[in-house]
Amino acid sequence: MTTNEKALLLHEKWNGKLETISKAEVKSREDLALAYTPGVAEPCKVIAAEPEAAYKYTIKSNTIAVVSDGSAVLGLGNIGPLAAMPVMEGKAVLFKEFGGVNAFPICLDTQDTEEIIKTVVNIAPAFGGINLEDISAPRCFEIEERLKELLPIPVFHDDQHGTAIVVLAGIINALKVTGKKKEDCRVVVNGAGSAGIAITKLLLTYGFLHITMCDRAGILKKGMDGLNWMQEKMVEVTNLEGADGSLADAMKGADIFVGVSAPGIVTKEMAASMNTDAILFAMANPVPEIMPDVAKEAGAKIIGTGRSDFPNQVNNVVVFPGIFKGALEGRAAAITEEMKLAAATAIAGLVDETILDENHILPEAFDPRVADVVSRAVKDHIQK
Amino acid sequence: MTTNEKALLLHEKWNGKLETISKAEVKSREDLALAYTPGVAEPCKVIAAEPEAAYKYTIKSNTIAVVSDGSAVLGLGNIGPLAAMPVMEGKAVLFKEFGGVNAFPICLDTQDTEEIIKTVVNIAPAFGGINLEDISAPRCFEIEERLKELLPIPVFHDDQHGTAIVVLAGIINALKVTGKKKEDCRVVVNGAGSAGIAITKLLLTYGFLHITMCDRAGILKKGMDGLNWMQEKMVEVTNLEGADGSLADAMKGADIFVGVSAPGIVTKEMAASMNTDAILFAMANPVPEIMPDVAKEAGAKIIGTGRSDFPNQVNNVVVFPGIFKGALEGRAAAITEEMKLAAATAIAGLVDETILDENHILPEAFDPRVADVVSRAVKDHIQK
Repeated sequence: MTTNEKALLLHEKWNGKLETISKAEVKSREDLALAYTPGVAEPCKVIAAEPEAAYKYTIKSNTIAVVSDGSAVLGLGNIGPLAAMPVMEGKAVLFKEFGGVNAFPICLDTQDTEEIIKTVVNIAPAFGGINLEDISAPRCFEIEERLKELLPIPVFHDDQHGTAIVVLAGIINALKVTGKKKEDCRVVVNGAGSAGIAITKLLLTYGFLHITMCDRAGILKKGMDGLNWMQEKMVEVTNLEGADGSLADAMKGADIFVGVSAPGIVTKEMAASMNTDAILFAMANPVPEIMPDVAKEAGAKIIGTGRSDFPNQVNNVVVFPGIFKGALEGRAAAITEEMKLAAATAIAGLVDETILDENHILPEAFDPRVADVVSRAVKDHIQK
Repeated sequence: MTTNEKALLLHEKWNGKLETISKAEVKSREDLALAYTPGVAEPCKVIAAEPEAAYKYTIKSNTIAVVSDGSAVLGLGNIGPLAAMPVMEGKAVLFKEFGGVNAFPICLDTQDTEEIIKTVVNIAPAFGGINLEDISAPRCFEIEERLKELLPIPVFHDDQHGTAIVVLAGIINALKVTGKKKEDCRVVVNGAGSAGIAITKLLLTYGFLHITMCDRAGILKKGMDGLNWMQEKMVEVTNLEGADGSLADAMKGADIFVGVSAPGIVTKEMAASMNTDAILFAMANPVPEIMPDVAKEAGAKIIGTGRSDFPNQVNNVVVFPGIFKGALEGRAAAITEEMKLAAATAIAGLVDETILDENHILPEAFDPRVADVVSRAVKDHIQK
């Protein structure tokens, strides 16, 4: 039986991967009087007088919503909210299993930006955080930014920031292995959607100076036709030389390639045209932009992919459970840039010098230390 | 320690009464590939092609939302969504513990009818049913009616229909005990909010002919000032003689009193003015409209209250878990009037002739047969 066949059968057996269970026992009239009426009125009254007490008496303290409109589901595209459910349930499972965070899938029957924003604001009281998921660009940028302004709880678009954080963690260690310096590196990010833009932003924040973004149309530059509003902002801070051309042109002499794009679009020749000790993160799934063995033959030093059957899996499961675990435990009002940098540095730090080499730049997805380390990094940067 | 003090301490210990747990084990890379990517794409594709398959592969099959805007929380009034959370979590606990139904609290940060409707429609994909809770009248009527039109899943306002069903169940048995006939009974319903109106409607559907509704202003009649649109509809089908006057006037000679109103507003004299073998459901909480011993002294035959420390507790926990259990198992598109009547009859039927007397007209809240019997009644009346 293939993995796919087995997955379908298992999903039928599970009949929903989540269950909502009670922490309160209700076996007697007294139990009922404590967990429900009349006793339940007491915490209600306290919260009515002092809203902050919701974190003491309700699930808000440790529950987030996994919110999607199903418009950009991993590898499947715009399949809508109902078909996106298995993915969002899966994400909720990972939040719980890896971070101990209760998560509930909210799949929205609208793809209108304003309606999504209003709906999420309206349902926010029950939740301690909002994880946005699989919402297409550029709507995802506006939705996240507006929700961050409107809500007093952390809002985090994992496709953007989870990916950016794990990529930065990998790059921090790749620099150690290759001896390259961030200030000198030329970086090419291919794919100017939610992940590519967030990666570029975080690399700039970290201190990279020379980044070129590419998309289907080639190198992104100022004044180009067809850029969305967020891409317009990105060409102000990338490709400062105003270079023109194709992805192949961009990659000539580059030190780092980060692909969040499409299978097989990086040729052996393109990889060979990069600087010595080149670093490639080829994260298209399931088929990367370039296969690791081909990139190695072309002279690349470090290759990361999204796959667990190659070395250096770049998997944001090392990021998002710990991010919300820390944010909830520390009652963060937002996930800041400092927290993202600290999380990336902490993840990179888990690979100690005895292990670190070109095939071991990131911790394993199942490394039991990861969520705690990320959580601590987040908590250490909460502004009180 | 009082119940209230204990309840507050326990709520702090629970720190949220619900937990979201995974049915899928995620201990290895293979597990991850089955519950999440890449395997999860298979059920997604099937649902995208055939939306009905969501019931096979997702939590929609057995999960409902408990939706409130916190505008009319039991005994506490308009305390808002955050303070309503302990009640909605408690309700979700009861759905699970009594009916095996997964339920998640959705507390809405809006009390605008249109926004509530839009928000619930937008979040509906994840859910197999919507239980509306503690929404003030008359908005609750419009919200429920509109959602029933807009959504292909059952929508049920428990404050209305759960209460109406358990009251009807009690009255069915009270008629047996007293030998009264529904066609001949004069019924007074005091309290013209969500519960009072739903009770009146269901009693009319069951076949009662003479019902008078009262409110703070006394007997409700056609042409009266200050009625809301739903009360306007109710005076078309109640108080057919066009009687005028106070609650005391209405109760003279009545056979049945149903109170969903305020503590202590029925005097001994008013109870004494009723017909012989009078039946009183005095459900104000925690202090009923008239205390059972006082009503008995006034000659009443059967008294029910909302309390567990008196005989004949009228508790809708015998209704709502079974209603949604049946609706979900049978994939009902709606909760119909036939289902409500069948549920009431089934609940009444659980009190067999060897037990049935003036102090035993309803099954206990913890009777383990209740949810299954109600569920079966619902399933037997699903139109395919």
